[in-house]
This record gives sequence, C-alpha cells and structure tokens, in this order.
Amino acid sequence: MIIVIQCSDRVGLVGAIASVVAKQQLNIISMREHVDQTANLFFMRLEVEETGAPATLETQIRTVLPADAMVVINPSPQKKVVVLVTKEHHCLGDILIRNFYNTLGAKVLGVIGNHPDLEDICRRFDMPFSLVSHQEKSKEEFEQQITTIITSYQPDYVVLAKFMRILSPQFVAQFPMRIINIHHSFLPAFIGASPYKQAFERGVKLIGATAHFVSNQLDEGPIIAQQIIPVNHSYTVADMVKAGKEIETAVLANALKLVFEDRVFVYNNKTVVFD
Amino acid sequence: MIIVIQCSDRVGLVGAIASVVAKQQLNIISMREHVDQTANLFFMRLEVEETGAPATLETQIRTVLPADAMVVINPSPQKKVVVLVTKEHHCLGDILIRNFYNTLGAKVLGVIGNHPDLEDICRRFDMPFSLVSHQEKSKEEFEQQITTIITSYQPDYVVLAKFMRILSPQFVAQFPMRIINIHHSFLPAFIGASPYKQAFERGVKLIGATAHFVSNQLDEGPIIAQQIIPVNHSYTVADMVKAGKEIETAVLANALKLVFEDRVFVYNNKTVVFD
Amino acid sequence: MIIVIQCSDRVGLVGAIASVVAKQQLNIISMREHVDQTANLFFMRLEVEETGAPATLETQIRTVLPADAMVVINPSPQKKVVVLVTKEHHCLGDILIRNFYNTLGAKVLGVIGNHPDLEDICRRFDMPFSLVSHQEKSKEEFEQQITTIITSYQPDYVVLAKFMRILSPQFVAQFPMRIINIHHSFLPAFIGASPYKQAFERGVKLIGATAHFVSNQLDEGPIIAQQIIPVNHSYTVADMVKAGKEIETAVLANALKLVFEDRVFVYNNKTVVFD
Amino acid sequence: MIIVIQCSDRVGLVGAIASVVAKQQLNIISMREHVDQTANLFFMRLEVEETGAPATLETQIRTVLPADAMVVINPSPQKKVVVLVTKEHHCLGDILIRNFYNTLGAKVLGVIGNHPDLEDICRRFDMPFSLVSHQEKSKEEFEQQITTIITSYQPDYVVLAKFMRILSPQFVAQFPMRIINIHHSFLPAFIGASPYKQAFERGVKLIGATAHFVSNQLDEGPIIAQQIIPVNHSYTVADMVKAGKEIETAVLANALKLVFEDRVFVYNNKTVVFD
Repeated sequence: MIIVIQCSDRVGLVGAIASVVAKQQLNIISMREHVDQTANLFFMRLEVEETGAPATLETQIRTVLPADAMVVINPSPQKKVVVLVTKEHHCLGDILIRNFYNTLGAKVLGVIGNHPDLEDICRRFDMPFSLVSHQEKSKEEFEQQITTIITSYQPDYVVLAKFMRILSPQFVAQFPMRIINIHHSFLPAFIGASPYKQAFERGVKLIGATAHFVSNQLDEGPIIAQQIIPVNHSYTVADMVKAGKEIETAVLANALKLVFEDRVFVYNNKTVVFD
Repeated sequence: MIIVIQCSDRVGLVGAIASVVAKQQLNIISMREHVDQTANLFFMRLEVEETGAPATLETQIRTVLPADAMVVINPSPQKKVVVLVTKEHHCLGDILIRNFYNTLGAKVLGVIGNHPDLEDICRRFDMPFSLVSHQEKSKEEFEQQITTIITSYQPDYVVLAKFMRILSPQFVAQFPMRIINIHHSFLPAFIGASPYKQAFERGVKLIGATAHFVSNQLDEGPIIAQQIIPVNHSYTVADMVKAGKEIETAVLANALKLVFEDRVFVYNNKTVVFD
Repeated sequence: MIIVIQCSDRVGLVGAIASVVAKQQLNIISMREHVDQTANLFFMRLEVEETGAPATLETQIRTVLPADAMVVINPSPQKKVVVLVTKEHHCLGDILIRNFYNTLGAKVLGVIGNHPDLEDICRRFDMPFSLVSHQEKSKEEFEQQITTIITSYQPDYVVLAKFMRILSPQFVAQFPMRIINIHHSFLPAFIGASPYKQAFERGVKLIGATAHFVSNQLDEGPIIAQQIIPVNHSYTVADMVKAGKEIETAVLANALKLVFEDRVFVYNNKTVVFD
Repeated sequence: MIIVIQCSDRVGLVGAIASVVAKQQLNIISMREHVDQTANLFFMRLEVEETGAPATLETQIRTVLPADAMVVINPSPQKKVVVLVTKEHHCLGDILIRNFYNTLGAKVLGVIGNHPDLEDICRRFDMPFSLVSHQEKSKEEFEQQITTIITSYQPDYVVLAKFMRILSPQFVAQFPMRIINIHHSFLPAFIGASPYKQAFERGVKLIGATAHFVSNQLDEGPIIAQQIIPVNHSYTVADMVKAGKEIETAVLANALKLVFEDRVFVYNNKTVVFD
C-alpha cells in the first residue's frame, strides 16, 4: 500500500505519521521524505504492508497533519492513461508493448492521433485508436474533439508521446499536472522547434530528452526526468534525430514509471521524485 | 547533527525515533531509512537541526530501540584519516588537494608509503610522510611497523590509495570495516592482479573501478561505490590503465565523501548507502 | 556503399585502397581503420558514394591487398535474421517493433521459441513463429529441429533474444560468429546462471548487460557492446531483474545496429567496433 | 608523429595523403578523417611511426592538397600553457597535479590570478603566480597587464580555469581559438551568470559543464567537451555548485587532453574531435 502526503512543514510530522502507521501494526517497507525549507513544504511517500482499512487510516493520518495536507492512500493502483500521438512511432510502440505485457504500471485505454499513421500498430494490439485531424478546423474545434474523447475515458493521465501540436492553455487547464510530454532536448536548452537542428548548428557534444508535466508555458512545465547521450562531429541532424528517438523513448518510459508508481510530487513548477 | 542507527527491525521504529526527536523540538532536515527484510535489519540516517544535548538524546533514542542497536549521534564531524600509498600519485594527489582546501570531509593526519616516490608531493602540502619499505623484512614486521604508525594517529579510517601490498587478515582485523580500498576493476570482474590486462584480453567494452571496505578476503569486501567508463578496440593496456586512473580517482573520492558523511552502513558483506 | 576489409597489416594499405577508390571517382564519406600491432592485423570500413560496379571494385581492391584479405563490398544491405526466444518478451518486443517500422537495419524472417508464450506477439506482427519445445527430446534432437528451421530461412544472423537454453558447440559451429546473444551481466562478472542473484548477494552498485557473439565457451564469446545502470541497497533481486531488462533491451538493440551496419569485426575472441 | 590536416574536400585526398606517407615507409598507427559535406571541408589526423624528416614530409603532403590546406606535422609535442584563475581552486588544483607529474600533455608556464587566493597552491608546486587585480583600473588596463604577462610566456594555449572576469573581444582576438574556458552548465542551457541558481529554479534533473574555445560572443564559442551528472530535488544551489565543481574539473581535464593531443579541429564555430 502506498501513502503519499504533501503539506506545509512543521516539527514532528514524521514521528506523528509513523506512529499512526505503527499503531495499526503496519510495517513500513520504505519511507521517503523531503522538506523544501524555503517553500516550507513537506513531502512523504510511504510503502507499507497491505491492510484492509485504508479509509480509517487516512482519517487517522489527517488528524496529525496540517489543514492544507493532501493525503492519498493507495492511489489508484492501476492508473488509466490516454496517449496522444502524431506520426512518430518510437514512444508509442514502446508504450504499447509495455501495456500489452502489463509492465507499464498503468492501463492505456485509448490512443488519439491527429494523423492516421499509427492506427495500424494500435489495431495490432487491439488498442482503440481515434483519428482527430487538426486540418480544416479551428484549434478550438480540434481541441474540443480531443477533449471529448479523453473525457470519455476518464483517465488519470494524458501522455503526449510525440504529439506535435501545441496545446492551448485552455486545453491544458482541464488536466492540470496530468499531461506528461516528452521533449526532444535537455531542457531548457533548445526550447521550441527543431531542437536537433539547433543542437547540430551549435555543435553540442551531447543531446538529450526531457519528460515533463505540461503547463501553460510551452516547454516550461515541471521536469520529471532527463537523460542525455553523447554525440560528435560525425552526426548529421538526421543522425541526431535517430539517436534522439532512443533517448526520448527511454526517458518517457522512465518518467511514466515514476509517475505511475506515485513517486512524483509537483510544486512551484518543480518536482520531488522519490526514485 | 547526524544520527545513524542500525538495529534489528520491528514495527514502529520510525515513529518511535521520530517522536523522540520531535519531543526535543528538533526539526528533521533529512531522514533516510532502509529495512532489509531478509536480514530483519533496520538502518536509519537522520540529519536534524543542531542541539546542545546529544548525550541525552542518545539515551532517549536508545529507550525506543532493540537491545542490539548501534546508535551514533553526531559522529565525529571531522573524521581522521591515514593514507597508505605505493608509487602511483593520482588518488593521493586528489586527496591531498581536497584535504588542503578542506573539501575532503575528513582530515588526513599522515601518509605512509612503502616506496619513497610520493614523499615529495606530501612535503609540498606539509603532510607527514612515513616511509616503510616492505623490502628485506617479513610481512609481519612490515605490517607491524605500519600498524605502529597508524595507531599513533588514532585515525577513524585507513585509506588505501593505490597501496599495492596485500594485507594479512591479522592486519585487517585491527581495523574492521575501517580500511577503504580502491580496486581497479568493476568487481567482481577481474579479481586479482593486472585487471586491465585481463580486461584487454577479454575485449571488454567498459572498464571500471570499485571502492570497498577491506575484509579478510582479497577484493571481496563490502562495495561502497563503483563506476565505469567505455573503452574500445583502440585502447591498449596502457591506455586502459591511463583511463582507469581517472575513474579510480573519481570513485575513491566519491566513496570517501559517502563514508565521511556517515552515509554508509555495513552488514553481511554489503553496504547500505544513503547518497 | 560499404566496403569492409580485414587482412594482415603492411605499410601502404590505406593509401593503396584509397587510391583504388579514388580512381573510380568515388568520394569517401567516412573511413575508419584500425591496426592491431600485436596481431599484425588491419581492419577498415569505408563508406563511399554509390556506384554501379561493385564487382570490378572488389577485384581492383584485392590486387592491392595481402592474400589473406577478407573483402566485402556492399554487404547485404538488408541483413536477414532469425530470432530465438524462450518466455521473456522485452528484447523480442523491441526487435519486432523496430522490424515492423524498418528501423532494425535487418529483416526478421522468423522467430523460434522453445515455449509458446511469445507466439501471440509474433502473430500480431504477422511474424512466423515456430514452436520447438525442448521437452521430451534429446538436446541433439532439439537442436536439430531448430537448425532445420533456421537453415530454411538462410539468415545472415541468429539472434538469441533471451533464449534460455545452452547451445552445444556442435550447434554453434554451424553459424560461426553469426549468433548474437544478450547476457544479463556485465561480463566477465557473474558468468553463468542467475547473475542478478549473484549481483544482489555481492552487493554491487551497478548491474549491466553484454551483447556478444556466441562461441563454444559459454559466455566467453567476443563482446560487441556492454552497458550498465546504477543500483543500490533498496533493489531486491526482482528489482534488479526488472532494471536489467531495460538495459538488456538497449544493449542488444545497440549491438544489432552495429552488426547490421557492418561496423563489427571479429578476431582473437575480440571485436573491432567502428561506431 | 602526429600529422593534422584541414582543407577543402576533393576526391582522392585520403589516398593521395596515405600514398605520400607510405612512400616514406612510414607505418600508419592510426588515421581519423572527417568530411563536412555541407561545408566541403576535409579533416584528418594521422599518427605515424617516428621519422627523421618531417620538413620534407610536409612539402610532399602539401603537393597533393588543395591550396587552402593547413598542415601541421609533429605539432609541438609539449604544448605550453598559461592558466588564468580567480578564487576557485578545483580546476587549478587538478591541472597543477597533472602538470607536476607530467600527465597533463602540456607544460604550464605560469598562472595569472586576479585575486591572491591561489598563490599559495602555485607556490607549493614552484609555479610562477602573477597577481593582476582588476580593481581600481579600467578593463583595458587590466587586460593589457594580463596580455603582457601571457605574451612573455609565448604559450600555445591560455586556459581559463574558473577565471571569473569577462574578457573583451579585443583581448580574445589576440589568441584566436587558443583560449579554452570551462563553463559551469551544459551549454547552451543557462548561459550567463549563476547557472546553478538558474538550474535549481528550473528544477532540472541533470547539471553539466562545457569546455569551449572562447570567441567574441560570451559562452558561444566552439564546444570541445561536455558532461553531465544527475541531480535531484534534495540538491540545494550549494549542493549543485559542489557537484558541479567535480564535473567542471573532469570536463576541463578531458578537453585539455583532447586539445593537447591535437585531436580538436575548429571551423564554423564547431569542433571536430577525433577522440
């Protein structure tokens, strides 16, 4: 059973929480806590032995916490996910394989694409695919259609697996800190379009990828995970794109694992990640 | 203030310890705990705000712990260290620079070499250097002379910074889990002599280094830290040795930092490292 | 067009080869060469602009090379591959996705499994799957059945994507340096069975994977690629297995890319890899 | 003997150069070449067995190259270096140790500091230290004084080992592509001041360092080497600074090794690095 807690900090929180847990004779398998002293915020992730009474436990824990506490006990053990894609298959292919073998840590309910390219791979995994073209319609209309489909699935998270349309603040506001994107650069380097072309022209010796929650500001949301790979003078832009796809796939997979295991907390446009 | 605790596990330990700390109105800056369920062992490292009364605190904490508990409050904040060397300078040079600028996290009291090669660099840092040749004397005699010098310094740790003599179990037993060695391979690969030659002949694509506590079995003690670097077909044995020195220096520096900050616990020939 | 050359070394080889290429007005896009001075061997990989006459070019190049030269011009641009599996899906899933999208650099002709578990995923990609159980038959019979199927495909390479049966020297001898295996440790550490269990018990701080050609000696063949990931005390054996699968998938994919792009040369149980 | 060549590309260069070398019965130990097809530029680094007649060889090689060719045979095997510093010791300490043991690949002739802090460590290594304060004088005057000292040493390279004054284009123009700087971020992220504070506020999961040649544009010169290390939510700005120093030291050391071994070519604000 996982217990995640986020609240303002004060002396004695760890002891009080741990005592509540101990009174129920629950053994702590792992405990991670962090205090941001500047923000006066307390974060905790507890993994305890299973119990039959999470509701009571939550009430008991809340009695020892500040009023602003967010407490989630046993967060939905199998998160539900909708994936948005465009044409590139590398991230989606990896997600579909993991979903198929139940190693994703979540259940993909459906895929929405603004191009038909990835319908085939979805079909092969019996995964519902909704084509919502962005062409010949306004951004509002396009996003409204996507929203309707997403909402019908009632997902915990929306994953942008190389979805190449910029989403409006209005759209994003509907799923606050529940949209996860993979960006093809080690942010904040190479914000915006064609990061690999920018990287090539700058002559960098490493390229990377960043998985982050989507906020209103393009490429500015809280970072969940980042990784890089070395490149050199022999890499063309195309080579960088190719190498980048490997790292994008790996970083997104890692970020999703962290989020789905309730290891990621968000505050002040940052994350606490108990990995 | 750092508090480290190692004891047999039971339900309620975290809460009990944290409550004791909270009763003293000490704020927890960071808390790391680990339970090895197979070994039924509990490990905790607490960093709390400074206080004037560590002795009382230790008594209070002990009252809530099993009888087998090891509790160390405010471990000697500046560890004392003796370094043993032979001829290679890379690890010692790094240690002397860090010691000189007080960034080692410990104080080097003296260096013992079985060759005179590194006396010069020690002298430049006003560091006492004792030459104890292993030649024309028995191993017992050699180790006895080293022991006498080490003991005179009363160090917390003995660091083997490329000390190329194999130490007897009798010597090691005098400083249990207090001797730290840097081994030039990613153990357990290439145990024994000439690991880079072995690595070259096996055609590996990565070489590494391992910092570990010294136990009776050669190269078999608890591992503290390991790192690798990629190599390729163009590396000669000499190139590997050269590249290896960089990684040896880095791994030993990292391991010493972890040990000196009381982040390393030892049990069952393994370590728990709260990094 | 790719040209790969392996022969005994002598003065002037690079100039002689490059002159032949220049006389045909072929521009060199990239050239990599290596000389093992101890073994007196010369290795070269040339990428030149396309031409219509590879047969003539090979004859011309051979005239400037020693008699023992192996020269391959325009190695089969689309390698043909058969994959052997048991139950674990991670490597096969990755290979099937890459094969489906033509990013593997080779064409998978068929998959052979000694268990039926992975038939489903193959079927979804319209990939022929042959079930050859090892049960209730001799090793000879088992291997004979596999051989028959492999031979029917006439593949360039056989990939062991977590194939958990040990192959006999007789079987291996049929496909010398054409069988690629992924081993779940950074060889030569943890040779043999249950490497993650061995790694857990030894308390290592990094685990890895090794892709290698299969030779007669178990886990002793020429290494193509290796990678590691850090682990710590919180990893159970199961956690290591899980983390290991990620690295196994990545290392095998990387090794296959290198082999399929004709970047790997084998000699003296080692590889030269022009990556 | 090292031969480095940079010129406009044309068919047959490799063969022509290699033939010249072969005619002198010089064995090629290693050859690396790169063609930037967009820029139509050819780069080569040859390592050949020693010879007594480099002057003749250069003339002979030039006869087969375009008129714009830069050819350097046997580049000064022991580069001469002047190091500029401010207060931080980590890069200088590392350089002084390597210089002392002749493993830097260059000879440090002197150190110039705009603060007296690092005079002590220089003195301990018998290294000339010139104090040139920037205070109470114009930038022109300050740079003029530094220039006078640098020029007196006639160095091949000027190394900015955490020199915290911004140099004017006029100063930089005196040593084109001969000034090497270590920047405390993985450029182009976090250009300018306080990169670790910027990194902390952005909540990145990795920090890095970049060694680059200094051009007129601040932090915009050709990148030689970059590296990163992972960080997490528990890192304060101070922790990032501390971790950053380790990576800065390592990256600068690596970049200097590459430059001093004549492995780095510069063009179009980029580098070709034959590592």
